Amino acid sequence: MRGVVLHAPGEVRVEDRDDPKILAPTDAIIRLSATCVCGSDLWPYRGIETVDGPSPMGHEYVGVVEEVGAEVSGVEPGRFVVGSFFASDNTCEICRAGYQSSCVHREPIGALGSQAEYLRVPLADGTLVATPEVPPADLVPDYLAASDVLGTGWFAAVAAEVGPGKTVAVVGDGAVGLLGVLAARELGAERIIAMSRHEPRQRLAVEYGATDIVTERGDEGVAHVKDLTGGLGAHSVIEAVGTQESMMQAIRSTRPGGHVGYVGVAHGVELPGMELFFSGVHLHGGPAPVRRFLPELNGLIAERRISPGKVFDLRLPLERAAEAYQAMDERRAIKALLEV
Amino acid sequence: MRGVVLHAPGEVRVEDRDDPKILAPTDAIIRLSATCVCGSDLWPYRGIETVDGPSPMGHEYVGVVEEVGAEVSGVEPGRFVVGSFFASDNTCEICRAGYQSSCVHREPIGALGSQAEYLRVPLADGTLVATPEVPPADLVPDYLAASDVLGTGWFAAVAAEVGPGKTVAVVGDGAVGLLGVLAARELGAERIIAMSRHEPRQRLAVEYGATDIVTERGDEGVAHVKDLTGGLGAHSVIEAVGTQESMMQAIRSTRPGGHVGYVGVAHGVELPGMELFFSGVHLHGGPAPVRRFLPELNGLIAERRISPGKVFDLRLPLERAAEAYQAMDERRAIKALLEV
Repeated sequence: MRGVVLHAPGEVRVEDRDDPKILAPTDAIIRLSATCVCGSDLWPYRGIETVDGPSPMGHEYVGVVEEVGAEVSGVEPGRFVVGSFFASDNTCEICRAGYQSSCVHREPIGALGSQAEYLRVPLADGTLVATPEVPPADLVPDYLAASDVLGTGWFAAVAAEVGPGKTVAVVGDGAVGLLGVLAARELGAERIIAMSRHEPRQRLAVEYGATDIVTERGDEGVAHVKDLTGGLGAHSVIEAVGTQESMMQAIRSTRPGGHVGYVGVAHGVELPGMELFFSGVHLHGGPAPVRRFLPELNGLIAERRISPGKVFDLRLPLERAAEAYQAMDERRAIKALLEV
Repeated sequence: MRGVVLHAPGEVRVEDRDDPKILAPTDAIIRLSATCVCGSDLWPYRGIETVDGPSPMGHEYVGVVEEVGAEVSGVEPGRFVVGSFFASDNTCEICRAGYQSSCVHREPIGALGSQAEYLRVPLADGTLVATPEVPPADLVPDYLAASDVLGTGWFAAVAAEVGPGKTVAVVGDGAVGLLGVLAARELGAERIIAMSRHEPRQRLAVEYGATDIVTERGDEGVAHVKDLTGGLGAHSVIEAVGTQESMMQAIRSTRPGGHVGYVGVAHGVELPGMELFFSGVHLHGGPAPVRRFLPELNGLIAERRISPGKVFDLRLPLERAAEAYQAMDERRAIKALLEV
């Protein structure tokens, strides 16, 4: 099969890879309908995470089940399925508490590489959520978004305890931040402040439910959020970047007793204990347990109530993956979908 | 009046101070029944926080109202009252959300110095909670504990989402940690692991409800907590020390999706973002909004349901405050009460 392999920072190639095979009786093989490039794929692409030899890339996926292992009973060949970036058994105590991304048996999909024609999904029964029927083509990007960026933005909003009557600020205007805006609206937020300085992203933020746009960053951004909230800060803040500046911007934009939901992978971040202590905020985040939300998100997509796939503003065939990486790296695209 | 003044690290003197006077119509003056030395008083005493000239000390207090300003209507002379270490209006949006220690009008009691015969309490209506009657002398230490260490341990347990069916670990065997154990029991925890290597403190922890004692610290302590919790970590962890080691011990002892309630004032702590991210824990803490809990805690004390005053294992007259500081500094006393 054809698949994306990162050889060195900046060096993405689409090449022949071995077709995946069932290795464990709990595995499934899926034929991908679409995959995409994640903001977190840019960390190794930019050399910020080290690249140890050629690495298959990708951890977002939707597709049709091709084959299942002997112990798989929840999905069968021909079903359209959505999964997320950690395979999980969905039965352990951690999964049952809703933290499938920390499942005691979790396996990272990223190591298998979903930017390819086929993917082996471990722990298929616990990981994959099937749709009632194979969806029409126009919904495929929406389901693909559910696989990571929507599920992650949704988790961030839940972690930030978004709800009716609350003012929410969103730090980060990438796909996750924008879908955090969408999640905040769906969860009933009264006011949603999107922090963005890019006009096309601002437009999508407003379409997804943002009521205010703040273009400043850092301390000026914090001051603007405070101005908009009677000097107190937002009740709920979604952090969807993962840098020192964005984390501090999120914490400082939150009122005492408020909630920060952070989902940007925190590269080089060190949180100053004393400032965090006196901020009085709640902090929760980490790798989103997307699996917890997939049944609900799939339902909202099937009903066409939400259109998370609009974050894909670039679509290219798999063979042109290198261009997709480049466009995202240069921020020319919010998120690139790869047609398989 | 007589009062405690810190002149330099290690140099505590009891000397004549001006009697406090009503300065604002919302003030009250109380005649202290008892006061005490806090673990956080040891930071400047040890020179870890700088001492800028002679500083009145103390922020824990119970006493009888002596005089009130013209706008005070909630308490009157003769009433026995409990307050906490931040004066708060108890009416602003932050107070109404239960975060009185971050009240928009808060004033630190520590700057006024409650280790004295009299104390001016700003925002008396919002700050002070009166008991139905002047309590018998034997309950005074219990009410005094409510003023800070019980309220703080209680907040830590609430922040750690302690509840029925949960396993709770407590990092720190000072008065706050021990009263965190008591709070965890009252809040219905199934299992309470106290982390302590001091035999008298272990005894009190068990009396307060600890079901297990872990004597190891750092990574060994974490490993022991994991052993006791099926490899997963505790659901809820109370952090009541405020050092880098104790914070990391708390975070690492918590299962993914679990809750850390931290109330140790975080001196020199830097939380590594990437580890925190992948821990998947909830983190909440800060200066405890003791005022939120005072009505409930006062009730439990009046009913003699709890005996938080047992943490006072040293009682000295105010004049001998220097000895009290020394005993706490050398860990010969858990907590020293000063009789006024």
